[in-house]
Order: sequence, then C-alpha cells, then structure tokens
Amino acid sequence: MEFSYSPKVQEYQNKLSRFMEEFVYPNESLYEQQLNRQDTRWSSVPPIMEELKTEARKQGLWNLFLPESEYGAGLSNVEYAPLCEIMGRSLIGPEVFNCNAPDTGNMEVLERYGTPAQKERYLIPLLNGEIRSCFSMTEPEVASSDATNIKASIVREGDEYVINARKWWSSGAGDPRCSFSILMGKTDPDARRHEQQSMIIVPLDAEGVKIERMLPVFGYDHAPHGHGEITFTDVRVPLENMIWAEGKGFAIAQGRLGPGRIHHCMRLIGAAERALEELCKRVQNREAFGKTLSSQGVVMDWIADSRIEIEQARLLTMKAAYMMDTVGNKMAKQEIAMIKVVAPSMALRVIDRAIQAFGAAGVSGDHSMAAQWANARTLRLADGPDEVHRAQLAKLELRKYQKASPVES
Amino acid sequence: MEFSYSPKVQEYQNKLSRFMEEFVYPNESLYEQQLNRQDTRWSSVPPIMEELKTEARKQGLWNLFLPESEYGAGLSNVEYAPLCEIMGRSLIGPEVFNCNAPDTGNMEVLERYGTPAQKERYLIPLLNGEIRSCFSMTEPEVASSDATNIKASIVREGDEYVINARKWWSSGAGDPRCSFSILMGKTDPDARRHEQQSMIIVPLDAEGVKIERMLPVFGYDHAPHGHGEITFTDVRVPLENMIWAEGKGFAIAQGRLGPGRIHHCMRLIGAAERALEELCKRVQNREAFGKTLSSQGVVMDWIADSRIEIEQARLLTMKAAYMMDTVGNKMAKQEIAMIKVVAPSMALRVIDRAIQAFGAAGVSGDHSMAAQWANARTLRLADGPDEVHRAQLAKLELRKYQKASPVES
Amino acid sequence: MEFSYSPKVQEYQNKLSRFMEEFVYPNESLYEQQLNRQDTRWSSVPPIMEELKTEARKQGLWNLFLPESEYGAGLSNVEYAPLCEIMGRSLIGPEVFNCNAPDTGNMEVLERYGTPAQKERYLIPLLNGEIRSCFSMTEPEVASSDATNIKASIVREGDEYVINARKWWSSGAGDPRCSFSILMGKTDPDARRHEQQSMIIVPLDAEGVKIERMLPVFGYDHAPHGHGEITFTDVRVPLENMIWAEGKGFAIAQGRLGPGRIHHCMRLIGAAERALEELCKRVQNREAFGKTLSSQGVVMDWIADSRIEIEQARLLTMKAAYMMDTVGNKMAKQEIAMIKVVAPSMALRVIDRAIQAFGAAGVSGDHSMAAQWANARTLRLADGPDEVHRAQLAKLELRKYQKASPVES
Amino acid sequence: MEFSYSPKVQEYQNKLSRFMEEFVYPNESLYEQQLNRQDTRWSSVPPIMEELKTEARKQGLWNLFLPESEYGAGLSNVEYAPLCEIMGRSLIGPEVFNCNAPDTGNMEVLERYGTPAQKERYLIPLLNGEIRSCFSMTEPEVASSDATNIKASIVREGDEYVINARKWWSSGAGDPRCSFSILMGKTDPDARRHEQQSMIIVPLDAEGVKIERMLPVFGYDHAPHGHGEITFTDVRVPLENMIWAEGKGFAIAQGRLGPGRIHHCMRLIGAAERALEELCKRVQNREAFGKTLSSQGVVMDWIADSRIEIEQARLLTMKAAYMMDTVGNKMAKQEIAMIKVVAPSMALRVIDRAIQAFGAAGVSGDHSMAAQWANARTLRLADGPDEVHRAQLAKLELRKYQKASPVES
Repeated sequence: MEFSYSPKVQEYQNKLSRFMEEFVYPNESLYEQQLNRQDTRWSSVPPIMEELKTEARKQGLWNLFLPESEYGAGLSNVEYAPLCEIMGRSLIGPEVFNCNAPDTGNMEVLERYGTPAQKERYLIPLLNGEIRSCFSMTEPEVASSDATNIKASIVREGDEYVINARKWWSSGAGDPRCSFSILMGKTDPDARRHEQQSMIIVPLDAEGVKIERMLPVFGYDHAPHGHGEITFTDVRVPLENMIWAEGKGFAIAQGRLGPGRIHHCMRLIGAAERALEELCKRVQNREAFGKTLSSQGVVMDWIADSRIEIEQARLLTMKAAYMMDTVGNKMAKQEIAMIKVVAPSMALRVIDRAIQAFGAAGVSGDHSMAAQWANARTLRLADGPDEVHRAQLAKLELRKYQKASPVES
Repeated sequence: MEFSYSPKVQEYQNKLSRFMEEFVYPNESLYEQQLNRQDTRWSSVPPIMEELKTEARKQGLWNLFLPESEYGAGLSNVEYAPLCEIMGRSLIGPEVFNCNAPDTGNMEVLERYGTPAQKERYLIPLLNGEIRSCFSMTEPEVASSDATNIKASIVREGDEYVINARKWWSSGAGDPRCSFSILMGKTDPDARRHEQQSMIIVPLDAEGVKIERMLPVFGYDHAPHGHGEITFTDVRVPLENMIWAEGKGFAIAQGRLGPGRIHHCMRLIGAAERALEELCKRVQNREAFGKTLSSQGVVMDWIADSRIEIEQARLLTMKAAYMMDTVGNKMAKQEIAMIKVVAPSMALRVIDRAIQAFGAAGVSGDHSMAAQWANARTLRLADGPDEVHRAQLAKLELRKYQKASPVES
Repeated sequence: MEFSYSPKVQEYQNKLSRFMEEFVYPNESLYEQQLNRQDTRWSSVPPIMEELKTEARKQGLWNLFLPESEYGAGLSNVEYAPLCEIMGRSLIGPEVFNCNAPDTGNMEVLERYGTPAQKERYLIPLLNGEIRSCFSMTEPEVASSDATNIKASIVREGDEYVINARKWWSSGAGDPRCSFSILMGKTDPDARRHEQQSMIIVPLDAEGVKIERMLPVFGYDHAPHGHGEITFTDVRVPLENMIWAEGKGFAIAQGRLGPGRIHHCMRLIGAAERALEELCKRVQNREAFGKTLSSQGVVMDWIADSRIEIEQARLLTMKAAYMMDTVGNKMAKQEIAMIKVVAPSMALRVIDRAIQAFGAAGVSGDHSMAAQWANARTLRLADGPDEVHRAQLAKLELRKYQKASPVES
Repeated sequence: MEFSYSPKVQEYQNKLSRFMEEFVYPNESLYEQQLNRQDTRWSSVPPIMEELKTEARKQGLWNLFLPESEYGAGLSNVEYAPLCEIMGRSLIGPEVFNCNAPDTGNMEVLERYGTPAQKERYLIPLLNGEIRSCFSMTEPEVASSDATNIKASIVREGDEYVINARKWWSSGAGDPRCSFSILMGKTDPDARRHEQQSMIIVPLDAEGVKIERMLPVFGYDHAPHGHGEITFTDVRVPLENMIWAEGKGFAIAQGRLGPGRIHHCMRLIGAAERALEELCKRVQNREAFGKTLSSQGVVMDWIADSRIEIEQARLLTMKAAYMMDTVGNKMAKQEIAMIKVVAPSMALRVIDRAIQAFGAAGVSGDHSMAAQWANARTLRLADGPDEVHRAQLAKLELRKYQKASPVES
C-alpha cells in the first residue's frame, strides 16, 4: 500500500493547483454572472467554461480520470485521487478538466462495456467534451436505494426496445449539450433478482422523452446542468443501444458506481480543504470581544477537528483507491462503502464550521461554502444512502465471525 | 411555573391548526407559483398572501404575538408559544397571521419605546399588515456578533441626523411593501461602551438609501422579502426618528432581541414537528430490502431521538417564556440564551433526518424540509451566533461560584 | 402541568440540601474508610450509615418516595423529583433517607400488590430501614432486555412453589441486612406471552439460594450492597409468597419499573449538577498556558452545554412525573421512556466533561465523578437498555399516523 | 509513504497473534486469580506473568519497540505499529513482550540520552525485564497539562542533587520490581521557560521517597503496577543521575512522549479491534424481540461505524509512524497530536458500543471491555489532554496562512 505522491503526481498537482489559482477560482463569479445574463439560466453554457476547457486541454489536464484505458491519461486511482481532490475545490472545476459526474461514470461504462459503435458515437464526443450525458436510475415512486425496486420497463419489440419510465435526479439533463442518457430498467421481471435490470442508451431527442422539470437542491438550480425529472413514454431505441447485454444492469452498476463514488469522495476532500483554508484565513482577520476569532478556543477546536477529519478521510480514500488498483473494484467494496459514508459527513461538518466562522456571509453566495455544503448533502443520498452502505459494512464484518450460516450480502 | 395549555390557548391552537390545514399548507405551492409567474420574483407579493391575511384577520388570528399591550391579543409569552409553533410549521405561515420577523420585533420596539407620532406613522400600519419593515444591524465589514463592533455612523446636524452605513442581512428589505428600517449605529463613539449606539427609523425611500443587492441563503432568494445589503449614504432623517434617545441602542436591542429570539425558537419547534410528521408518514409507505422503512431500526432511532429532542426543546422554550412573563426579559436571559442555542440545532437535526428518510426528494422543493433546514441554519447565526450565547451561559454559571472577583457579562 | 416548587417542596429542598452539606458529603470518605477497615468490604455496613439514617429520620427526611400511600410522606412524583435529585448528588445519599434502589421499587410493589401478611413481614421492616432487599430479574443466559426471554422456573408443588433459576445483577444482594429478593420467573410457559411470568418473594436464607459471586461495575464492587449472581436450586417457598397472582409478573413490572426508572433519572440529574458545580469551582482555580481554565473557550462550552442539557433533562423528568401523577404510570410510558433514554446519557456527558476538567484526578477516587460515571453508565442498561426504549418511542410515534394497521407495542 | 505489511512484519503478526491466542487470552483470568489469592493484590506479581515473559522471549517476541537501536529488534515504527496493536488487545499483553508503558518510554530515554553507566545500571535490567520503572511528571497541585507549571525542585548541593516534590500518577510504582523513577523537576527557575526543567533518575529505595498511596482508575487498582502518589522529601541522588544535562527536561520530554503517545494509540486500536470482534460474536448469539441482535439495524450501525473508525484511526497512526521513521519525532508532531486525539476517543466509542451490546455483562469483569474502557479513558488525559493537542494542531494549521505574525507554538 503505497500512499505517497510520485513525482509524476506531484507535477500534476502543481500544474492543477496553478491552473485552479490562475483560471478557475477567479472565474467562478464570472461563470455565475454569465448564467444570469441570459434569458434563463438554462439557455446556454457560460462561454467562460469552453474557454477554460480549451486551456485545460492545452495544458494536458484532460480526462485524467480513466484508469487502465488508452483513452485516459494512464493514471491509476491512487494517482488520480489527489488530482480529483484539487478539481473538487471548485464546483465548476471538474467540468473544466472533463472529469465531471455523471459523464465520467458514463465514459467508464462505455469504455468498459460499450461496443465499438457505441464508443464511436457516444464515448469519443464525451471524451472530447463536445457533448454531455446523464444517468437515469432513480425513480420518484420507489425507494431507489434498493435498486431492485426500480420499475422502468424496457421491452423488446422486433429490432427495437420500447422504454417506459419516470426517472428523476438525472443530473446534467438540463445542459443544452446533453445528448443521451444511460437508463436503468427492467428487461425481464421474471429473471433472478439481480438479472432483471439492464442499462440502455437513450438519446434525449428521441420521441417520447420529456424533461418534465428541473429539480432544485436546497434552492440551487445547478444550471445549466441541473437535475432532471424525465418521463420516457413509449420511447423506441434500436437494439444496439443495449449496453453489454440484457440483464447486466446490476453488474454494470457495480462497476460504474464504485469509481463514481470514490471520485465524489475525492472531490469532497478538496471542498473540505478549501473550506478549512478559508476559515483559517477569515478567523485571523476578524475580531470579536477583544481578540481575533483565531484565538478563541472554540474556533481552534474547529480547526483541529477539521484537520483531523480531513486527514483521516483522505487516508481512507487513498486506501480505497489502492484497493481498486490492486484487487479490483469489487474486492474494494468494503473500502468504497466506508469512504462513501465518511467523506460526505466529514465535508458537511468541516464546511459547516467554516459557515459558522463566516457568520451570515457563510450561508450566502459570496463564498463557496454554502453551495459546497448543499452539494455534499446530496452525497449522503446519491449513489446509495449512508444507511445502505452501513448495512453492507455490518454484514461484511459479521461474516468474518460466522461459520455455518452465511449472511446474504 | 405553569406549562399546560389553558382552555383559551387550546381554542386558539385548534383554530390555528385548522387554518393551517385548510388555508396555509394547500397554498404553499400556489404562493411559489405566483412568485414565479411574475417578471421577477421581486415584483410583487403573491396575491394569495393578502387573501390569507384577510381570512386570518377575520378569524381573529392576528397580531397574537404582542404581550402586555393594548395593541395585541392579550396573550402572554407562555400562551403565545404554542401558537407561534403552529404558525412556524410553514415558512409562509407567520406572515399570514401578521406575526413574522422582523416586523414583530420592530412592532415591539415601537410599542415599547416609540413616541405617539412614531406609533401613528409606523406601528399602526404594521399592525394592520399594510406595510412591512426591516432591521439593519449587521455589517459586512465587522464581526457583528460583537455589537460594539458596529460602525454605522449617525451624526446630528441641526434638526437632522445624517446616516452613513453599509448594512446587510436586512431581512424583508426586498418586499415591495417594506417602507422603513430600524437602523443601529453610533451616535457617540466616545461614550461608554454600551452607550455609543442608537436606533433610528430610516424610511427606505429616503435619499441616499440604496439596496445594493439581495443575498441568497443556500440558494434560496426568499423573495419577495429577501435579505438586503443596503448602503446609507448621507441619508438625512428628522430628529424625531430617533427611538427612545441617543445611546439607547443596546438597551433597546436587549429588549428587542429577547422576544425575537424566542419567537424564532417557537417556530423552529413547529418546523421540526412538521418534519417529524412527514418523516413518520413517509417511512410507512416506502419499502426497501423487503420491509418498510418504518421497521428499520435506524429509522426508528431517528424517530425516537426526534421526539425526545423536540420535547425537550419545547419544555425549555416554555420555561423561557414563563420566565419572560414572570421576571422579565432581562432576568430571563439565561433561559433565552439556552433555547437560542438549543432550538436551531435541534431543528437542524430533526429536519436533516427527515431529509435523509425522504431520499433525494428531501433536498428538493417538493417538500418543506430543505427550505426549513436552510432557514434553521441561519438561526445558528442570526441574533447572535451559538458561540456568543454559550459564552454568556458559561459566565452566568461560573458566576455562581465566585466570591471576590465577578466575571464581566 | 405545574412545574414550580411549592413552599412545601422548597422547605424540603432546603432541609435536604443542608443535611447533605452537613452530614452526607463530609462523611463520604469516612464511609469508604470504614468499609476498608473491615476484614472484607462485605462484612458489615459502615456504622456511619446507621448514624446518618437515624439523623435523617429524626429530621423527617425519610421514605419521601412513596406517593399515594399512608406509608409515605404524602409527596407526589412532582414533589419528590427535586428531592430525589438532591439525594442523588451522593452515591451514599439515597440510603440515608431510605430512598434507595432497589428497595424503593420493592416497597412500591409490596405496598401496591402485597397481602397484609406480606406487608407486615417485608414492607414494614423495609420502611423502617431495618432490612434490605434485592430484585432478581436479569439472567446471564438470555438477552433480558426482552423480558419474555426470562427462563427462571417457578413450579407449584402442593402448598409450595419450587424455584430454579440463575439470576445476576441482583443489586443489594451483598448487603448483610438483605433478607429477601423479589424474583421474576415463569409459572406458566404455555400462557399468553405476557401472562407467563410471575413475581414471588424468596427469602435469601431459604435452602438452595446461593450467592455465587458479586459482580463489579468498572472496577467498583459497590460493597457492601453489590450486585449478586445468585443461583436458586429447588428453592421452596410457601404459596403466600406469590405477589398478586400467578401470571401477573409483567403487569407488576410495568408498575414497578416506571417509578424506579424516573427515580434513577432524578438522581442522575443531581449527580450531573454536582459534577457541574465541581467543574465550575475547579476551573476557576487552575491555570494553564497563562490563563485560568475557566476562561478557556472549550471549557466554557462544556459549562454551557452542561447547563443546557441538565436543564432540559430536568424539565422532561418533571413532565414525566407530572404525567405519572395525573394520568398514571401506564399513560406516562412515553415520557418515562424518554427520560430513561435522556438522563443517563446526559449525566455521562456532563460528568465526563468534569472528569476531563479535573485531569487525572477526575478518574481517581478523590472526587465523586468517576464512581458517579460508572453508576450512570449502568443505567443505560438497567431497567431496559436505551435501544428498547427508543424502539418503543418510535412505535408510539408511528402509531399516530397509522389508520388501518396498528403496530404492536 | 508505505503502509503495507512487509513479509517480516506479517511473520511477526502471525507469531504474535498465535501467542496471544495460545498464551495470553487464556491466562487473563488466571492472572487476576493469582493477584486475588495473595494477602494483598500488591504483594507480588502473579507468577503466570514471568512464565509468559519467558515464553515470549524464547519465541523472539521481546523488546520489539525500540527503533534504531542495537538493543531492540530493529523494527521501524511502521513495522512495530501492527505488532503493538496486537499486544494491546489484552491489558496484560504488553508486559509479556516487555513492551509496556512506562518502561518503554524510560528505556527510550536511557537508550538515547543515558550515559554508559546509566545504561548499564538501569537500561539493561529493564531490557531484560528484571526490573520495572516509573515516570514522575504530573503533580497534584498544578495543571500539569502545561508542563511549565511543574514545581518539583531539584537543587544541586555539592556532588548531589536534592529533590523535593509531590508527584502522582507515577504508573507502575506499585510493582514490587519497580526500582527507580525518572523524575521531572526544576533545576533553574530563572532559566528560559523551556530550560528550567530537568529529568533525573531517582531510585525508589532512596531515603525520603515515600509512596503515599496508590490511585484507583474508575475503581480499578491496576495492581500490582498501580498509579502511585509519591512524595520526595530531601531525597539525595548523585550528580551522575542527571539525564543528559540540566535544563534538558523539555527536550527529553518531547523525544520521550512522541513514541509513548503513538504506542498508546497502537494498543488502543488493538483494544478496539478486540471489542468489535467480541461484539460481532455476541450479537450473533443473542436474540431479543424475535430476532438476533445482529440483525437489528442499530447494532449493525454500531458495527459499521466501529469498523470505519478503527480503520481511519489505524491509517492515521500508520502515517504518524511513517513520519516518525522518515522525518523524525519532532517533525511528526502534527501527526502524533492527531492520533493522540483520535485513538482514545475512537476506542472509547467502539468499546462503549460493545459494552452496550453485551448488556450488564459489559460493565462487569467477565469481559475485557470495561477495563479497557477505563484504560482508554485515562488516555484522553495522560501525556497531554485532548485539549492541549487540539490547540497545538490549530496553531500549526493557522500558521500556514500567516505571513507577518507567527503564532507561538
């Protein structure tokens, strides 16, 4: 288990950090202004984003996320983790480097399970940052934390699949460049429990696809990407849009969600680091009751606890990345479940302390904290709520001490 | 210490609860829709609000907050507490009954310290719900948790005061009906520490008053009321706009903030009760992994802890109200400080559990929780951050065991 | 709901507090010394205890716990609560006033369900403080938190019952004056679930009763009372030792445990108050890093949180007592469950902070904190672990929102 | 940063684990019985201990702790950490392998700063497990968390030092084999703040040394080692007993306490692992309310959280060990402070959950948990209370963002 940063990684870290300082942080408010200058915040992507992407690609800071693939930068998960962390310090960061969810997850699926034609048509434009995509799994009618509950229907009729579903939280669906969704649904309700579901590519301009509305997150619309509630009514797609094969939905999800989860965690660590940094700077420049906030014992406690919690979350994330690199995503499921529980809560605590230290400014839009908090809060739910991961961890732990009667996973 | 609900209070509770069920909850989304139908969300107050106010006033559910005054409904704080709680279950509730912050606080100030002319001009229209008002205390440049830091300048020139200040978080400033602010600022920088500040009435249409922007709270704009950042540049108001007298700013604040704080806490208890109710209903109708969420041990723990925490916060709030009624706001400062620390954190925990139980729906706008959470979060900062109240409590406690050397409050 | 202290209660409070100051606190170490001076700590009760009891009885501070009974002092639960709290400040306090567990619970059972003969033989000497008693419910072999698990067998043979059981945590069994146990066991394994168990009086000198060992609590032996593991082998008692009737074990337990639980909570509040008082005194007399501990922000936070938590626990306890007085122990079960969860954890936190403030002295025997902590820790388990009470609270809460399908309690 | 276990380490792990299973766990209760069989628990060391030591030494499991020294086993801190963890699973474990505090710390001091004569006389017998030692730093009269408060006086008179002091919490002082103490005291009250103190070797049989009493920890006497309160009255020791040089007390402490702290943390991780293991086994064999405890959601949460917290604490400990190995104890001070805060609290939480899962058995002496809990609780105080480490961490963090005005450490 090797956690230190290799010279290659350190060079990337330096480049990325400089890029963030020079290009990303100073343009966060411009991005927001450009959004607001439009008729609606959904009309188009702020031009600054494409400028930043061009620059990032020029500097070789592009598609760093894809391990073990000719398409990526050839970085392992352990190498990518500290870089993803840096990108995550800004909510507009990951897209700049073409490393944003849910596109990264979709690219991984296509890279791993896609046919050459699917890769040509969907993967390459995504890798080039020309289009965006979304992922349609969660449904409003059922507790989707238990994926066997998912009801979307995918029925084969001749050389087409007919899709009927109501999905929501399809993040990125609002983006004008969003061209397709990977949808999870049932192809065979009578198959074995984990072989009923499939994943299929659905172009968003197909007939019968309707974005009903964009869902807010604590008052944030997250334009222009947003989170779509989408109905699919008798949507027809060709057979070749099926990914891998019918009944492989769960298998793909297992592969897809692992990396997606750890990427979220890496970014959350970056968000927490930035919040702590801003807290530390702020409290040295504010006085109350005759002394700087930085010399108040309670504030010092916040700082110490934040440093401790970030450090522990990072080490656990690195271990999970290491396991993914060495024994594979499936064997790393315990570690992935652990960070998925740890990182969002850690980030929420650290950011919340920064908010408290900033006073009312902390809940406003003047600093990155409130928006980062809201984002982190969704990650106690997205990709499986904490409770599901905890239950899985308990089962894995209990199993060590069982002889005769194995617990079902 | 009498905590039970008198027949009079019970009758009000029943009327209010019926009113909420019949008129308020069903119109929450209409209110939002009417806001969105306008050019901007700031153009006017949704018409449904005036309809609801008319109905509430007709039913005698109006100005229930004002104790010991001919202008109010003659309810003590103990009597008002359970009613305020019911109103707080909806974010649009308090205004319906003309019991919303910051107007209630301003009305109390005017009722208690206003001249007959001030009452005629400002208090009566507020009591009638014809105008709105805001309160300008916090400043962006200083840690306003220590009110001695406040820098706004109020200088007497002839028969006028000249005001220069930058204030923010003047809640309600966005409301088109908002006609004046009560502003806190320094009249005498050389006076003793707690006699430097004064409170003065500033009409918002006075020359030199400029609303620079409206501040969001976790992405919520809180239109049409909002939270204004306002500059006051050489604003001139007549001498008679001074409240009570020069140098009385702190004394008024002490009187003003006590009731304001406890009202916030009462409303938070209502918000928590509603979240718990929604949680309980939801979890009985959702299944995951073969059983309803309501039979999952972790969810049951959330419910039990929420009930316990709400109950304790309510009892403490009742005790604080009782102290205010019997020994006065000043002597009740320990109890007020305690609930000010307890109620927001309690509400945040309870609401957060409801969010988690609702899954992604919980962070969206489909339920009241996310917006209530954001509101509750500001109340760990507004009217004094938790840390200031805790420090005061510690000093009061330590003082019991001191003989010779008293600690400064 | 009337929470204030009546003049009668205030007079008792004053008398009790003076008694504690004058007689109890100063003799805590003498009690311990007298214990250690003996051959073993179990040989006899330290003589100081009988002296204190004599004095307490002389002052009319005796058997204050028994509500609605000719045998008690005629105090309601609301009246007794603040007195019990004062007694609980010292671990040797309750016995001094003949108000200590498990005797109080046993006396309540006998007073309520005992025959005249049982009262004459067992209740009167207990009321006089001449004998002690224990309660044998928990068994080592089963999870006794679910009382239906209890396996002890009580079989009628002719005019006797034959008892076979292994019980532990029979507190008080080590006391040389302990003369009988109230034992819970199965008379009819085929009866309905809550009618299988009975309670019966077993003299400790009966043949077949063997105290196997005394169990320590975190290193404390709690001599001379202690916690016994007792085997009952073919123990024969006459039929008249049955309490109330066969199959009434659960019904009696419900009546018995309610008051017992709330008494524990009252005492814990006293223990927490004393710890907070000692903390406050200590931190004003210790300096580190150039200032007194009392001016360290973190210590101030401890004090504030402790005051808040004690206050809330006390109010909830008072409400539970009020419910018991007005609607009865059974209807008060929600409130009793709440304080049973709240009070031990509250006391543990408050006492733990005091320990931390005292440094290493806090974990030693030089102050009351370490022993009080250990005692409080057992009360998260005794009379039902937290988890059982929380589950019950959740069920009660969920039931409010159910129509068709009632949840079993 | 290399965290994985080398083949050498894995071999040691296997040997140690087997040794624990075969020799240590089965003899824990015998150790206690032998103690109790004596006149007093302080008379002699239970014979089983010497048998176990002999066996351990025979197997090459001896003095594994001493890095970079000819006297040790040649293991780095990273290599020692997982081994120390295994030893820590039993409270009698560390001594078996001659790796117990405070002897390890004293051996490190002597190895690093001792003269050849001091090594010959004190270090060699310690390394051989023939004698024991204690460390006298904390004083009852002052807040010793601030070591500049320490008042013990060491005055040179001719060719002797005269020592006057009252020390307590000299752990190990009760051991009949304990032959000397390393005492910290003031040689020059007028020197600079961190050069006033010195460390000196004081034989316990020197005239004027009196063990006043042995201090209990939550009722545990920790016999035969114990925690002594010792007075030193005009105790005379030769000049050659001074360690390093006058005024070097702080410098030695800094070197001594780093390894000591991390060893405690390693052992706590082992204690937590054992508690979690026992919890997992227990809950699969207990039923309540119709299902095994292991299928109760709340219990599963405990298990998941425990696994997560242990894992994170271990990784942080490994990082601290790695820093000590690569950049030295002084540069590793941030990491050491972090684990010193993290490990005891983590262990307390994990063990407390196990206690709760075991019910009343958990607080008794039948399982290792209660005693391990009490031990862990002292480690939130020993070697610096949490609060001091947190304050140091905050200062280190704040310093990163300071330009002009450095904060004093």
